[in-house]
Amino acid sequence: MANIFSNIPSDIPNEIVEDLVNTQKLRIERIVSKGQSSPDTGWYDQEENEWVIVLSGFGEIEYSNGDKIMLNQGDYLHIKAHEKHRVIATSINEATVWLAIFY
Amino acid sequence: MANIFSNIPSDIPNEIVEDLVNTQKLRIERIVSKGQSSPDTGWYDQEENEWVIVLSGFGEIEYSNGDKIMLNQGDYLHIKAHEKHRVIATSINEATVWLAIFY
Repeated sequence: MANIFSNIPSDIPNEIVEDLVNTQKLRIERIVSKGQSSPDTGWYDQEENEWVIVLSGFGEIEYSNGDKIMLNQGDYLHIKAHEKHRVIATSINEATVWLAIFY
Repeated sequence: MANIFSNIPSDIPNEIVEDLVNTQKLRIERIVSKGQSSPDTGWYDQEENEWVIVLSGFGEIEYSNGDKIMLNQGDYLHIKAHEKHRVIATSINEATVWLAIFY
């Protein structure tokens, strides 16, 4: 057993990405952000589908068509493969913990 | 977008299980409990691996060897296929929201 809110440093100069599960079928990641946007340039254009939930903090996602979605605690979203998107803002006051399932 | 803590009734006479994603590769379920244990009799003996996290409330899991694990908010656990287990207690004062990924 482990806790999703454990081992979060107070200083987070770069996004922290950890695999919690990684098999041929799926990957479960914990992503911890604090003020970062990502990727640094351009868009995520993923081979896999992604189901993502914000467990603390908040993050704002933009799609390549200009749509923006603010995700607060408990909000979840399904991002299909090759649906171009990026994270344009995350909380600077607290860590944003994302749980992302890629499949 | 939806929120994992939305649409939780105050009365929960039976556990509520909803598929958030259901594909050939994986199934993501939201399970809401309030005082229930499960299954009603015997053990879960699943064909699939399960990764499960408690997002509110708490739940206590027992394995068939007698080991017990209390899961509080944010605690997550990996249960392998055919690892017999059951939920022996959940909070009676608040809803316990589980996010479970079967693959």
